[in-house]
Amino acid sequence: MKRYEDIKKVPYAGASGKDPFTFRHYEADTIILGKPMREHLKFAMSWWHTVNAGGTDMFGGETLDKSFGKSEAMAKCKAKADFAFELMEKLGIGYYCFHDADVAPEGRSLAESTENLNEMAEYLLNKQKQYGVKLLWGTANMFSDKKFMAGAATSSSADVFALAAGKVKAALDATIRLGGNGYVFWGGREGYDTLTNSDVGLELDNLGRFLTLARDYARKNGFAGDFYIEPKPKEPTKHQYDFDVATCVNFLRKNDLLQDFRMNVEANHATLAGHTFQHELRMARVNGVFGSIDANQGDLLLGWDTDQFPTNVYDTTLCMLEVLQAGGFTNGGLNFDAKARRASNTFEDILFSYIAGMDAFALGLKKAAAILEDGRIPAFVKERYASYSEGIGLRIVEGKETLASLYEYAKDKESFPVESGRQEYLESIFNDILFS
Amino acid sequence: MKRYEDIKKVPYAGASGKDPFTFRHYEADTIILGKPMREHLKFAMSWWHTVNAGGTDMFGGETLDKSFGKSEAMAKCKAKADFAFELMEKLGIGYYCFHDADVAPEGRSLAESTENLNEMAEYLLNKQKQYGVKLLWGTANMFSDKKFMAGAATSSSADVFALAAGKVKAALDATIRLGGNGYVFWGGREGYDTLTNSDVGLELDNLGRFLTLARDYARKNGFAGDFYIEPKPKEPTKHQYDFDVATCVNFLRKNDLLQDFRMNVEANHATLAGHTFQHELRMARVNGVFGSIDANQGDLLLGWDTDQFPTNVYDTTLCMLEVLQAGGFTNGGLNFDAKARRASNTFEDILFSYIAGMDAFALGLKKAAAILEDGRIPAFVKERYASYSEGIGLRIVEGKETLASLYEYAKDKESFPVESGRQEYLESIFNDILFS
Amino acid sequence: MKRYEDIKKVPYAGASGKDPFTFRHYEADTIILGKPMREHLKFAMSWWHTVNAGGTDMFGGETLDKSFGKSEAMAKCKAKADFAFELMEKLGIGYYCFHDADVAPEGRSLAESTENLNEMAEYLLNKQKQYGVKLLWGTANMFSDKKFMAGAATSSSADVFALAAGKVKAALDATIRLGGNGYVFWGGREGYDTLTNSDVGLELDNLGRFLTLARDYARKNGFAGDFYIEPKPKEPTKHQYDFDVATCVNFLRKNDLLQDFRMNVEANHATLAGHTFQHELRMARVNGVFGSIDANQGDLLLGWDTDQFPTNVYDTTLCMLEVLQAGGFTNGGLNFDAKARRASNTFEDILFSYIAGMDAFALGLKKAAAILEDGRIPAFVKERYASYSEGIGLRIVEGKETLASLYEYAKDKESFPVESGRQEYLESIFNDILFS
Amino acid sequence: MKRYEDIKKVPYAGASGKDPFTFRHYEADTIILGKPMREHLKFAMSWWHTVNAGGTDMFGGETLDKSFGKSEAMAKCKAKADFAFELMEKLGIGYYCFHDADVAPEGRSLAESTENLNEMAEYLLNKQKQYGVKLLWGTANMFSDKKFMAGAATSSSADVFALAAGKVKAALDATIRLGGNGYVFWGGREGYDTLTNSDVGLELDNLGRFLTLARDYARKNGFAGDFYIEPKPKEPTKHQYDFDVATCVNFLRKNDLLQDFRMNVEANHATLAGHTFQHELRMARVNGVFGSIDANQGDLLLGWDTDQFPTNVYDTTLCMLEVLQAGGFTNGGLNFDAKARRASNTFEDILFSYIAGMDAFALGLKKAAAILEDGRIPAFVKERYASYSEGIGLRIVEGKETLASLYEYAKDKESFPVESGRQEYLESIFNDILFS
Repeated sequence: MKRYEDIKKVPYAGASGKDPFTFRHYEADTIILGKPMREHLKFAMSWWHTVNAGGTDMFGGETLDKSFGKSEAMAKCKAKADFAFELMEKLGIGYYCFHDADVAPEGRSLAESTENLNEMAEYLLNKQKQYGVKLLWGTANMFSDKKFMAGAATSSSADVFALAAGKVKAALDATIRLGGNGYVFWGGREGYDTLTNSDVGLELDNLGRFLTLARDYARKNGFAGDFYIEPKPKEPTKHQYDFDVATCVNFLRKNDLLQDFRMNVEANHATLAGHTFQHELRMARVNGVFGSIDANQGDLLLGWDTDQFPTNVYDTTLCMLEVLQAGGFTNGGLNFDAKARRASNTFEDILFSYIAGMDAFALGLKKAAAILEDGRIPAFVKERYASYSEGIGLRIVEGKETLASLYEYAKDKESFPVESGRQEYLESIFNDILFS
Repeated sequence: MKRYEDIKKVPYAGASGKDPFTFRHYEADTIILGKPMREHLKFAMSWWHTVNAGGTDMFGGETLDKSFGKSEAMAKCKAKADFAFELMEKLGIGYYCFHDADVAPEGRSLAESTENLNEMAEYLLNKQKQYGVKLLWGTANMFSDKKFMAGAATSSSADVFALAAGKVKAALDATIRLGGNGYVFWGGREGYDTLTNSDVGLELDNLGRFLTLARDYARKNGFAGDFYIEPKPKEPTKHQYDFDVATCVNFLRKNDLLQDFRMNVEANHATLAGHTFQHELRMARVNGVFGSIDANQGDLLLGWDTDQFPTNVYDTTLCMLEVLQAGGFTNGGLNFDAKARRASNTFEDILFSYIAGMDAFALGLKKAAAILEDGRIPAFVKERYASYSEGIGLRIVEGKETLASLYEYAKDKESFPVESGRQEYLESIFNDILFS
Repeated sequence: MKRYEDIKKVPYAGASGKDPFTFRHYEADTIILGKPMREHLKFAMSWWHTVNAGGTDMFGGETLDKSFGKSEAMAKCKAKADFAFELMEKLGIGYYCFHDADVAPEGRSLAESTENLNEMAEYLLNKQKQYGVKLLWGTANMFSDKKFMAGAATSSSADVFALAAGKVKAALDATIRLGGNGYVFWGGREGYDTLTNSDVGLELDNLGRFLTLARDYARKNGFAGDFYIEPKPKEPTKHQYDFDVATCVNFLRKNDLLQDFRMNVEANHATLAGHTFQHELRMARVNGVFGSIDANQGDLLLGWDTDQFPTNVYDTTLCMLEVLQAGGFTNGGLNFDAKARRASNTFEDILFSYIAGMDAFALGLKKAAAILEDGRIPAFVKERYASYSEGIGLRIVEGKETLASLYEYAKDKESFPVESGRQEYLESIFNDILFS
Repeated sequence: MKRYEDIKKVPYAGASGKDPFTFRHYEADTIILGKPMREHLKFAMSWWHTVNAGGTDMFGGETLDKSFGKSEAMAKCKAKADFAFELMEKLGIGYYCFHDADVAPEGRSLAESTENLNEMAEYLLNKQKQYGVKLLWGTANMFSDKKFMAGAATSSSADVFALAAGKVKAALDATIRLGGNGYVFWGGREGYDTLTNSDVGLELDNLGRFLTLARDYARKNGFAGDFYIEPKPKEPTKHQYDFDVATCVNFLRKNDLLQDFRMNVEANHATLAGHTFQHELRMARVNGVFGSIDANQGDLLLGWDTDQFPTNVYDTTLCMLEVLQAGGFTNGGLNFDAKARRASNTFEDILFSYIAGMDAFALGLKKAAAILEDGRIPAFVKERYASYSEGIGLRIVEGKETLASLYEYAKDKESFPVESGRQEYLESIFNDILFS
């Protein structure tokens, strides 16, 4: 078999291709609904899983060495950056995302860490120019170190709140410098392990204060992109405050942050919250906060974040349907917050994993477009609610009725027929389009 | 064994009592933290499960006949009311709750149903006076009939929306007439079975319109009580729009209804949403919408609403801790939305079930009070967050810091000690108080 | 739109067909791997959901009237039988399954019920001849009536055990008479609601006795077909004794019944047990008890048996891969234990549902065959375990090594390379075949 | 507050004690049902969580340093052993358990690792004598190292199978030398991540071969204790072969190992499998394989193994009821496979955690004994099944009836009354005893 080093560029080979180092469905320049696939999908690489993670799980150590032959911290970070941009080139990926701690060594103090981050930001900026790659969003890791044991913005320690604020300042500076159009807050350990020792009211208010400070700083310093919250219901804490889209939007409304924040919806976090991926995207759409996507897939029979590369084409199709209906990405994109399985322990597997995920989303995009073009499903939905476009329904929507007037309208009717929802019929159309 | 008919009044027998027809922990007049238990707990009987349900489940029919020897619809409803008030008297329960369809026969039209409801309201009013019992809240059943197959306020049919509005008008009228201080919206079939056939945006907007109409009508007609939404995440629909407290509060904020609505938190619905009962109560408290409680318990290893009578004293204690810290009930109370197990198929079991539930909550109240009086747990929490009461923490809370100033504060520190959360220690204190 | 009555026969229209009353993938006579699709799939209709169920759920009544204009019990049963066979003819389905209580009215006594069953068996036998349809398996409903409140074979009442035995005798007689090659035991209420009131040891022993009696009776009376247990982990009871395949096989081994019993694996029951459908089929295969299939699909985010018509082609493909690798059905077949959604409330929806399900399985069969013919995935698995076909691995398999000899073999080696599991690569092949 | 070093011995202070460094319920010498608590409970310390684990989770590093000031591997292991025995002395714990890799450094080869293990075994043997502490059971870690990426006995590599066998030989030798009466097989990575790349049949057969080899070796070398399988359904693999008790017993029956193996039931593994802890203990009892217990508690709203110290007295009571009814432990005991929460990051928390767990089980033991002595619940169960002790029931149990004879018995009866299961009543008795 070919080796990782042998692959310069993963080409498109078409649906019948059998060379594993090719795309069978993703062809960046193919036009779908008037726009090239690369712009519809805006694929991004996640630094943490792809560049750093080596297969550790709660029961075992690394299965793949990602030190790239280096032992000194800064040298290792640079070697990793070299790897990252080469990988993106091989795959034709145009964006990436990182935590501060992913790309630069931690120092003994925030000042030292910031210095390291700045040095690496310079290095990454050059790489970006060299490869024509952009930063989708940046973020700060405020959960791995024991300092964040009890949270960051929601820590019981005010000093830790201050430290977290300082970290976000540095990460925002780096994001702005690198031209990032997004900045993500993933909750990390913002949540509780037991209500018995937690002042939830104070913690949530502090989280509101924290995000407000970050928004104010970034806007003052020229950041025009989107802030994102990435909902997650649990893990590592028992309850993460950013449980799901609805919970986050409630929080944003309460703290008057809805103008600046959107959602970074992650598929596996959705399912951990008891929702489908599509549901969370729809909720974001309905609340006007659709932003960006962390693409992966979970295992619904497992109760933790498995972060698998997405290969279920039903899910990618339903996802892309929501994206298309939301008008596509603006500042956001589709980041693979996914990791190769622990037993997929070669660099070749990293390629296979990205190919599998990118192809699954390319298929999903084509199929979603086909559903819209076919028109039967959207037409069914439109027809189903037609009664709100005229007569009593229209008057309800226009606010012209009262409870009392509706009582009068309904009181003597003996028949209220409701049309079949036709779920199975719609599912068979869906299958017909998927498998044609 | 004694029979149901033999029991006139379930007396308090003390913790060592062995007569099954006695309370071992609930003594209505005992003063806890300055208030009698009956006022702390405000127990209410649920009509649907207690008076109507006979043990039907998805796989089998009734195991207990609750027709009370009647076959004609109105006569049966009156016999059921007689039973209900006698039962409340036996148990010393001072409140009840009902759906319109629980207490009065459905007519061929809304007008006819309303007439029936009015007749029964008159009957109930007399019963209330006779027994000194009050209505905790009323509601309308908008989910059982096939008309509501696709929802009520969120139906795809505008006629059904109108019908539902008419039903709520009639139920509100009855609630006001009966002196109810609450009116509940439990979502019923307000949700979706598949996103593929659903216009979620329109449905949610219609739900907002519906609640606004109801609020306006009731306020205009003198209702000064609380409106409640009862969150539930799923069942009967795949996704219920009122998923959990946070979701409902987001909805209320969006539709400018937060002033008039509070939460009716149900224990089993909380766990179906992936939350503890305590969590949902805390979320209601933190968002200022604590209202009323549907007390039952689910089985966390089962995925449907089992509505068991509550007997877990950990849960009742944690619940009453939240209630006490919320300042107790105002218009709300503690309704047993619970049903005896299908195999508990005698009238005696109804008494045993209520006794079990009331005793479990009486114990929970005593234990919660003991935790507050003991003081160790509340003091631990206070101390844990002490850093926000002075210095940098206080300045953060007072909005006097910026991201940049916090960076300066934190940048050269090398140590950020965080105190132990002491979960196990707190749990052992909890046990010591529970089992002392 | 066309009406149910208008459809005489659902024809095959090909993948690009848009007439909803056609198959797009199922063509009964098409040869796949040397056998017509009809023989691979052996579709069967379930009487209970298809002929009897009208959409009732725990929160509402029927949405579709299936009384066929009859009110008298026996007349209604015959009208239902007429409907059932016409439906099978429309769909080209060759098998059916029933519970005793599905097809015949309950009498006041077992004797009377048996008489009714015998009368209906005669009626069904004539229908079978007329339509060329066969009985896949029969069974007895021992869970709906309140008599079975505490189980049947595991009831706390010996009289109920006796009654259940009598019912099974009658149902076996009818099954034999109708030429059924299978008889199913679905647990019904064989399980417990709380361990606190249950003698699990006695109940399980009684279940063993019961199945032994049934086996002995049937064999003595000429039944040469298979007995099936249908595993289900929970619902209606908290714990069903037939939790999953492994649990059932343990029970059969303990009670010396493994020779006569096989598994009737249901997809939705598998997922309720925390397993994939494929897992349960594999476990049946590995334990030599693969038998028959109840095809449906659940919703993994819901915790009850939703019994949806199967439309997920990943699942149907993985299922058919197991069936093909098991050598196909012998006495078993593929029964649709599925019901149209409650809001799919027309007779047309019954056709759409079966079409959706049959097409999904037809696609699954084709795709499974394509995977075997493609060969890459099976070859990967074979190669992965090649070390057990020679050298130390072969000696291990042949029982020629001991713990001590293996210690000697391994003790000085410093390297134990393990090949990548290549999960993502295999998933992308799977997708390539599915979507080519 | 007192410090870890200050505590020489955790004394019993009685239920009203407020010193956190005391037992409030566990008093080793108190006689319960004729036996001292220490013998009923046979508490054991788990090396891995208690001595080695420092709070690492999937999202963060250690919060507590357990290197004991040492850096050289063997010196660190000895310092850890010193800590372990001192801790057991403080707590009055008489047993411990370990994996090979917990107590001794890994070498470059199995031979070197074995040498290290032997050196440490000598060290532990001296400690055992010094402190009067015994080894409850030993085991081998065959999951952490990347060699075991695809399993050990079920690895796709025969060399890894051989290595695993060699490790078990060494661990058995050490266990025998240290006088251990048990040897545990916890599945580790014996399972699959995807069926698509797995030969489940071969893997399960190999697992059977492996356990047979281990049994044979141990028996030949004088091991007279019990072998245990510790069921776990998932994590780290998607499906662990030792899913639950029933699955394991099926496997043991199939491989003719039932005589030598018993179950080591873990509470949190039970709940991950969808079972209560009590259920798994009951299944072990009913199948005659009750052995030992890994005591902890999970969080039923979380989907991973949280391994919390057990503090729920309902669960400990139900557990001890099963233990008492099984006749108590023989070779087994009650090992705390639990870890202090990550945020409980002091050595004092280790004491608090063990105290909380030991007190919860002490309470559970007392309450279980009280339930048996009270007698109402056991009597209810006995009475409930009385119909199997005489008449038709007895004849059924004695095998004197046939299906046909039972049909005759039942056919004309019109009434089959079934007694109420009285779940709520029994739960209230349970509470009365717990909270009296």
